[in-house]
Amino acid sequence: MPELKLLSSHLLFDGSQKRYRHRSESLNCEMNFSIFSPPGISHNKKVPAIYWLSGLTCTDENFTLKAGAQRAAAELGVALVIPDTSPRGNGVASAPDAAYDLGLGAGFYVNATQAPWSHHYRMYDYVVDELPALIEQHFPVNDRRSICGHSMGGHGALVIALRNPQRYQSVSAFSPIANPTTSPWGKKAFGHYLGDDVKNWRGYDASLLIEASRASEHLPMMVDQGDADEFLIEQLKIKRLIAACKTVNYPAQITLRAGYDHSYFFISTFIEDHLRFHAKALGPDVNL
Amino acid sequence: MPELKLLSSHLLFDGSQKRYRHRSESLNCEMNFSIFSPPGISHNKKVPAIYWLSGLTCTDENFTLKAGAQRAAAELGVALVIPDTSPRGNGVASAPDAAYDLGLGAGFYVNATQAPWSHHYRMYDYVVDELPALIEQHFPVNDRRSICGHSMGGHGALVIALRNPQRYQSVSAFSPIANPTTSPWGKKAFGHYLGDDVKNWRGYDASLLIEASRASEHLPMMVDQGDADEFLIEQLKIKRLIAACKTVNYPAQITLRAGYDHSYFFISTFIEDHLRFHAKALGPDVNL
Repeated sequence: MPELKLLSSHLLFDGSQKRYRHRSESLNCEMNFSIFSPPGISHNKKVPAIYWLSGLTCTDENFTLKAGAQRAAAELGVALVIPDTSPRGNGVASAPDAAYDLGLGAGFYVNATQAPWSHHYRMYDYVVDELPALIEQHFPVNDRRSICGHSMGGHGALVIALRNPQRYQSVSAFSPIANPTTSPWGKKAFGHYLGDDVKNWRGYDASLLIEASRASEHLPMMVDQGDADEFLIEQLKIKRLIAACKTVNYPAQITLRAGYDHSYFFISTFIEDHLRFHAKALGPDVNL
Repeated sequence: MPELKLLSSHLLFDGSQKRYRHRSESLNCEMNFSIFSPPGISHNKKVPAIYWLSGLTCTDENFTLKAGAQRAAAELGVALVIPDTSPRGNGVASAPDAAYDLGLGAGFYVNATQAPWSHHYRMYDYVVDELPALIEQHFPVNDRRSICGHSMGGHGALVIALRNPQRYQSVSAFSPIANPTTSPWGKKAFGHYLGDDVKNWRGYDASLLIEASRASEHLPMMVDQGDADEFLIEQLKIKRLIAACKTVNYPAQITLRAGYDHSYFFISTFIEDHLRFHAKALGPDVNL
């Protein structure tokens, strides 16, 4: 069994918030993740897990400290699993100009194919396969999973769920980069990680994946987007996602929230709604 | 009317979180504070305010970002006012060794009498008089106030309420430095700010103030203390506070919380209980 090194542990809402370090095979480096375990779980009483993918510049700590998600997770009886947003450490490539939107803190949840990124930047494999296997080995967590995220992490959650519908019960996103093949953030990251041939980008674009989806593979999907979000028009492109869902009749609840911006204050306001949405799909072992 | 400069504004829980800068007369420097206004308030519909005093090393942003207090404040219809923990800026004295427990981020809510501190370090006057006057001039906030805080801020809240019972409806604290005249943090800070004569320290010690209090001036008081708090024995001294309350029959609800530590995770778990406790005292205009 791969080793986990405990970095910190805190009690909150009678559950536990723990942070661990482990060696990642897919990313070829040491990685940190955080996990919230609700009260009362044991290897005789496993709970489902909701995976949270964070946005640009974040680590596992932003959501852990700022979203206020643990209250509802404790009540519902679900675990929260929060990975970092990129590989880290000595030898891991970073953006030459220390840009915030490429390299460290900006893995975009893809498997990079281009040098110098391909040696470490395989966040897609890490989140889809390696991390859930590790979690389900080490913690009283069963294999019922949902996934959500914010911004770059909203993109990651949608893409990962759309490509692996058999592995998730539901998916949700806050302010996702919904059509990255046409947004500046997406074009820059995909160009570096995946190369110039745009046909290799399509498998990482939620709007394109929705349009190619079959009804038999549709998952419960919820998306919230603030209409005062400074990145809405240029980077996030929620209208493109709405149009894609309409085209194939994807059963998504997409809501524009008047006055809300791109910050964690927005997430904290609606995270309980998202966790309850997932809990309903993850039942029957949750406390709705 | 003193000028306020808006630094940031966010919507959350349909209320607003704003951060301002202003010139402080008592502190003789520019200060930042944060304020959460619940939804639906106006100058025709003013709400009570709960003041939050933070602990060592904090600014107004720690509580704002990490406590998750706005959800309950929005529901209850109370404002949250969050000052910084010390004067700041050019010319403001700092600890010679950049210590975390003296100077910047460590004002201890006293009026310093000793050089080089006395020119700026007057957090007691700032929190008791200047800030509430400013808030009640500029915002739809009435003069019904409660006060709470954490660690050094728990000490500040208790001391300020005990010395000014007519100005507050209730007081609460998480993990307060409850008997600072006998704790290393308190002795160091008071020695620098107030000088060597310990009789000048007594007015800033919650346990001593409780013992000197009259029943007619007792306020509703609530204190939570984690029993896994690393600072409990040496610095915080909750047993001394419990004994003081017993001596004069002070009507305080003091609870030891098994397994909880000194972190914001502890605060986030019980902040709703504290806000509801204050709201009851601040009624009848709150939504209990």
